[in-house]
Amino acid sequence: MIKIAVDAMGGDFGPYPIVEGTLLALKEHKDFKAILVGKKEKILPHIPKKYSNRVEIVEASDVIGMDEPATEALKRKESSIYKAIELVRTQQADGVVSAGHSGATMSLATLRMGRLKNVSRPAIATLMPTYKNKKTLVLDVGANVDCKPEHLFEFGVMGEAYARAVLKNSEPKVGLLSNGEEDTKGNELTKAAFSLLRSLPTFTGNVEGNNIFDGSVDVVVCDGFTGNILLKTSEGVADAISKLIKKNIKKSPVSMAGALMMKKVFRMLKKEIDYSEYGGAPLIGVKGCAIISHGKSTPKAIKNAINQAINYIRSDINSYIEKRLEEVK
Amino acid sequence: MIKIAVDAMGGDFGPYPIVEGTLLALKEHKDFKAILVGKKEKILPHIPKKYSNRVEIVEASDVIGMDEPATEALKRKESSIYKAIELVRTQQADGVVSAGHSGATMSLATLRMGRLKNVSRPAIATLMPTYKNKKTLVLDVGANVDCKPEHLFEFGVMGEAYARAVLKNSEPKVGLLSNGEEDTKGNELTKAAFSLLRSLPTFTGNVEGNNIFDGSVDVVVCDGFTGNILLKTSEGVADAISKLIKKNIKKSPVSMAGALMMKKVFRMLKKEIDYSEYGGAPLIGVKGCAIISHGKSTPKAIKNAINQAINYIRSDINSYIEKRLEEVK
Repeated sequence: MIKIAVDAMGGDFGPYPIVEGTLLALKEHKDFKAILVGKKEKILPHIPKKYSNRVEIVEASDVIGMDEPATEALKRKESSIYKAIELVRTQQADGVVSAGHSGATMSLATLRMGRLKNVSRPAIATLMPTYKNKKTLVLDVGANVDCKPEHLFEFGVMGEAYARAVLKNSEPKVGLLSNGEEDTKGNELTKAAFSLLRSLPTFTGNVEGNNIFDGSVDVVVCDGFTGNILLKTSEGVADAISKLIKKNIKKSPVSMAGALMMKKVFRMLKKEIDYSEYGGAPLIGVKGCAIISHGKSTPKAIKNAINQAINYIRSDINSYIEKRLEEVK
Repeated sequence: MIKIAVDAMGGDFGPYPIVEGTLLALKEHKDFKAILVGKKEKILPHIPKKYSNRVEIVEASDVIGMDEPATEALKRKESSIYKAIELVRTQQADGVVSAGHSGATMSLATLRMGRLKNVSRPAIATLMPTYKNKKTLVLDVGANVDCKPEHLFEFGVMGEAYARAVLKNSEPKVGLLSNGEEDTKGNELTKAAFSLLRSLPTFTGNVEGNNIFDGSVDVVVCDGFTGNILLKTSEGVADAISKLIKKNIKKSPVSMAGALMMKKVFRMLKKEIDYSEYGGAPLIGVKGCAIISHGKSTPKAIKNAINQAINYIRSDINSYIEKRLEEVK
């Protein structure tokens, strides 16, 4: 039976949405156990009796705050995230989910759980929506701000592995994010990465920012600085458009009536572009499984993050990555 | 009287929208002359008699195609863009507008017109919409894919100059695009640029991708690779949202009725986010004035690009930049 360690304390809204999300996941999946890590007296009252045999609580007296430096993480051995990750390291759990300090989660997962064979840098991957009925996996979106060409190459292999093993896409297309589609486009880093990625049969060449949303490839590779910019830019544009729609609707009573009738459309739309639906982002390349969730995660987002962790562990993606990197290196 | 050289041949749709846009500008401004550069027999028939004393045509038999390498530009001395830029270099025109090959325009403007004193790298600046009643100037969005910290510093000074001199914003706020707002965030390049930009009183620190659209700063500085990614990502998100709205509207007759009533709202919205409204992007840092327009420019976009050129020249931004860089370097 799969065991997931959940950092119950790290989120922006305290333990409630995290415990609630864990209960939703327990209801959905009959075949996993949750280990909630945090202050026992804050967690226990929320656990209904019927789940008591599938929930374990591991006491952790400390929490790493969102505004504390990630470098603290290794020293704070009583923190909920440190203890949750130790459970994976010591194989008492198969994976960890945290909505806490993402920098702390990343460095602890990388340093304590350790990297897979042949992986130099684990990367955070996230699924972006497109206007087709599919999503695009983008990595790295924040773990490595300065990358070497070899790192981008490894991200390509890990993205391919995730698409195949977890997303069950047997023929994924991998693109390299650049400032133009032509082979000659790119900066020093991406030009060098391009010539390495060429050796992957799944690699289709350079893609541009807009291609993330048109579904032309399944995996987009970039360094973690650029990945963060594109993620935040996307959120900013979507937010600005929704604010502009609201602002303009108020201007005319006729369009207000129209807007009321369109409510259903907007709800569908929100579901399709709302990243809280997707749960969390896996840190690919570490031993075991680490899912990084948004600090503002709702119970539903936590449930989806736990689902992701279960799929990740079942897929056996880690042996796939080690085998594939062995072959191509 | 201001003279603007217009590359009449470079756009994706041939000379028509460009000549038409020039005529719209001539109608709006009584005090400028247009020099249309291209094949005389394709341009002349479109010029009404009443404008004949304010329009000059300079013959150019060659056009640099969108798919040709920018390195061709310097050799192709009979091309419309080469000849248009020569008019500025020899001071027969004050500025140039081109919807042609943007790489060719950039290299010719930089190499033939030359750089301003103390400018190492001219940068392309573009105005991005926000949900407030203001816009954000972003530079560089494509001229320099590999930058040094000093280049980003100069972009900060040039952006400040454009905001002050052209946009008439006496107290612009300048931000550095990074992967987090904290001073310690960034990659090697932006961390080093941060410590240089610190000396500018207008510099307010790091900003994230979403801040471009919330109006929290007036100028956002980044390298040309990242700038291109953010531009294309923004276009991609806006396009995907509009496609998702259309797709979902079709699903229900009730929401179709609602959509009809909302048409006015969408039109307003389109105007606010449609980059064709803004004309073109200035290449800041060259002697004279060069405005780079989209290959798919409509007559209205060309008219707006010519307006931009006129404002640019009138503002005397170039002496401002030289003076300011002298002071801070």
